[in-house]
Amino acid sequence: MGKEITSREQDYSQWYNDLVIKGSLADYTAVRGCMVIKPYGFALWENMRDVLDRMFKDTGHQNAYFPLFVPKSLFEAEEKNAEGFAKECAVVTHYRLIADPDKKGKLIVDPEAKLEEELVVRPTSEAIIWSTYKGWIQSYRDLPILVNQWANVVRWEMRTRLFLRTAEFLWQEGHTAHATAEEAIAETKQMLDVYADFVENWMALPVIKGVKSPNERFAGAEDTYCIEALMQDGKALQAGTSHFLGQNFAKAFDVKFSDKENKLDYVWATSWGVSTRLIGALVMAHSDDDGLILPPRIAPIQVVIVPIYKGEEQKAQIDEKVQAIVKNLKAMGVSVKYDDSDNARPGWKFAEYELKGVPVRMAIGARDLQNNVVEIARRDTKEKTSVSIDGIESYIKNLLDEIQVNLFAKARQFRDDRITKTDTWDEFVQLLDSKGGFISAHWDGTAETEDKIKELTKATIRCIPLNNRMEEGKCILTGNPSVQRVLFARAY
Amino acid sequence: MGKEITSREQDYSQWYNDLVIKGSLADYTAVRGCMVIKPYGFALWENMRDVLDRMFKDTGHQNAYFPLFVPKSLFEAEEKNAEGFAKECAVVTHYRLIADPDKKGKLIVDPEAKLEEELVVRPTSEAIIWSTYKGWIQSYRDLPILVNQWANVVRWEMRTRLFLRTAEFLWQEGHTAHATAEEAIAETKQMLDVYADFVENWMALPVIKGVKSPNERFAGAEDTYCIEALMQDGKALQAGTSHFLGQNFAKAFDVKFSDKENKLDYVWATSWGVSTRLIGALVMAHSDDDGLILPPRIAPIQVVIVPIYKGEEQKAQIDEKVQAIVKNLKAMGVSVKYDDSDNARPGWKFAEYELKGVPVRMAIGARDLQNNVVEIARRDTKEKTSVSIDGIESYIKNLLDEIQVNLFAKARQFRDDRITKTDTWDEFVQLLDSKGGFISAHWDGTAETEDKIKELTKATIRCIPLNNRMEEGKCILTGNPSVQRVLFARAY
Repeated sequence: MGKEITSREQDYSQWYNDLVIKGSLADYTAVRGCMVIKPYGFALWENMRDVLDRMFKDTGHQNAYFPLFVPKSLFEAEEKNAEGFAKECAVVTHYRLIADPDKKGKLIVDPEAKLEEELVVRPTSEAIIWSTYKGWIQSYRDLPILVNQWANVVRWEMRTRLFLRTAEFLWQEGHTAHATAEEAIAETKQMLDVYADFVENWMALPVIKGVKSPNERFAGAEDTYCIEALMQDGKALQAGTSHFLGQNFAKAFDVKFSDKENKLDYVWATSWGVSTRLIGALVMAHSDDDGLILPPRIAPIQVVIVPIYKGEEQKAQIDEKVQAIVKNLKAMGVSVKYDDSDNARPGWKFAEYELKGVPVRMAIGARDLQNNVVEIARRDTKEKTSVSIDGIESYIKNLLDEIQVNLFAKARQFRDDRITKTDTWDEFVQLLDSKGGFISAHWDGTAETEDKIKELTKATIRCIPLNNRMEEGKCILTGNPSVQRVLFARAY
Repeated sequence: MGKEITSREQDYSQWYNDLVIKGSLADYTAVRGCMVIKPYGFALWENMRDVLDRMFKDTGHQNAYFPLFVPKSLFEAEEKNAEGFAKECAVVTHYRLIADPDKKGKLIVDPEAKLEEELVVRPTSEAIIWSTYKGWIQSYRDLPILVNQWANVVRWEMRTRLFLRTAEFLWQEGHTAHATAEEAIAETKQMLDVYADFVENWMALPVIKGVKSPNERFAGAEDTYCIEALMQDGKALQAGTSHFLGQNFAKAFDVKFSDKENKLDYVWATSWGVSTRLIGALVMAHSDDDGLILPPRIAPIQVVIVPIYKGEEQKAQIDEKVQAIVKNLKAMGVSVKYDDSDNARPGWKFAEYELKGVPVRMAIGARDLQNNVVEIARRDTKEKTSVSIDGIESYIKNLLDEIQVNLFAKARQFRDDRITKTDTWDEFVQLLDSKGGFISAHWDGTAETEDKIKELTKATIRCIPLNNRMEEGKCILTGNPSVQRVLFARAY
């Protein structure tokens, strides 16, 4: 019955791939490391994008669009940023193909059509955007600039995984310009809050807000704020980042403004982004061995209705009842699909929509009709209930809310159970290998120690939580003095 | 007062550039041939995109996302398509930059990181999409596939113009797969109708629907349907195309399906697209020497309200009245901006919003308040009227509708006045040089004649109108027999 899914216990990584591919979210393509986001997966992304876009606009941002290509001379202008991304850049060197003189019907790159300056396919857009902002900013009156871009970016990853790490991915990148450091820092924190709000209240995924250690900072940033989520295998996943860029890009691109006293100063910057990677997080956080479990607030289909009938007469009776329910649900803003296709049996359909993570399934048969009931199955708990058709629409509406709340509560419980304090190296290592999750431990604050811990355990500092409690202690590795605990984890 | 705009008479091409740049729609960037779409221009594109996206979904299409890169071997699979685009392809050849050993802080392309197979940055996505569809299609049950993609594409143009012809542009491309030629042709025509509906009823731009001559066909298509619009300088602009691709791509990528009788056949295809080029058409069709004129139905700001006051007390009184009007207008779905910024005088604001093409301007002063009136100025006719505040919201709502209708009627009149029949070569040439517009003339149906006419006059066959009247005649150039007139024009 239906498509086979590898269980988590059997092979977590294969389970994830099965869900993504068999759940019709995405698939591999003929292009190394690049995926196709299939219609069902893209509908999910559209829902996520639309909510975020509304949040960005509500906080005063506007969308714009900047070039895909970054000339090498601009790319290298902010040296740390360039250094951070250089090793994974796709580079355009030519602008024409010509017929292959040796093979009929084949093409070769035209050696005559070499670009004078190579173009980097944007891995992130700070460079191209700040070279453009230079023309937009003269005085404090031009500030702040609060701009976001929805775009594709390319980072040439050697090992790729659908959604989590692909050579090309979709994202949004906000790029703002401010007159003061304080204002830029406030923007950085505001957007972190927007991300946390979205991921927790729409994706039902609890996050820890924090600041990255210098090692894990965005290349070119003064400070990187992040939200960190926990997956079911105990590994962390960075769900979004918001960077305070200081004056680094303004200096690299010579972007100055005159203030009210007519004094010139460099502009202060932020950038912040989330990507289709969030879909990977969503899949890994909530789903089970039967397939995806999607939170109602962003599910492409919130309710699926499956008729169970023999013969046209029964079908017609069910149709009539269902049409009314569908109409009412749609009027309430519920996304509903009536699957009355006759090329699959109800049991196959049940399995298929379970696989696709549709939050609520309604089955309705001829006898149900007589009894004025339907069978409601919720995807998260798999509970089935017989429910009266009278008032079924508000029942469903409430159930969707309940599922949303339940998914978040369950994920938070899971996460909270996996934040463990330790003060000994042995336990630290043992926790990573057994329980996983976040480990709250002291660190001496040096990059060397962080590197060494990563080398020994593959764990990294996920973040220094915001409003962290100051507490004296000794570094888990070196025993050197420490003023606070930080969160370690193995991560995606 | 305000920014200077070159007049159409003085320099049409410069007038267009002034409108795009000073009207804050777009600007050049440091990347050759690539533009930045600025927030105001992007808000316009978002409005256009959202309407089109709704139309696509209402006709059963879903969005998806396919890779930016096309491996050369896939790109060249459909030979005609490859030949058509080869000369304008940006090609990625390397995947890494490294430190320049000769110049500190600079980067060079790493010669060790050469791709085994070059990647073409998509100029259009038939190749990558049909190589993917191969995995999606086995039987007639998998058909039709009705997918659209919103994406960026790259065509390396030697001479670029903002929106009209840029190396990178944004567009949508629909790619559908069908079991029969009839169904695919019906889809091709349906999407042409969708485009015509959108361009006429939302952009207020009349179009002629037609079919391209073989010379002007999309590379790889069996038939290209198009909508053609007329600009104020008498030149035509292709506003959208819808292609019947036959089985060309299915054959190139070996995509077969088994029908109900279990017989294998190649799949039938369509593709169709419109792009940010439409913004260029919009600018050139409606605007005047004072700036942009945007149709209300897609204008980012439909109504701007400018207060005229002396002192805080007057300002507070106006504010109170305006807040109520703004609230009511928003509730009616009207996009309204209250510009009470104190860093520009009313006259400057008037000029600025005229330049930006805001359809309706409301000015309100202290004396207006006493008289319970506001001054309403419409952008299209520049008429100003004093209007009672009572019921001002429905007055504005009606006025927006009226402006939309008026813009279309004006553009249609302009276009209809410039469709001219001729039967002599001398008049044909003279018409092109004087009146411009579409010239309805006989053509002998050969590619040679079409080429020769283009060479002599720069005019091309814009289309053979749908439902064209059959009429015997003699080719305008060769005198050879012809069965119908076609529409010639010089074009963007």
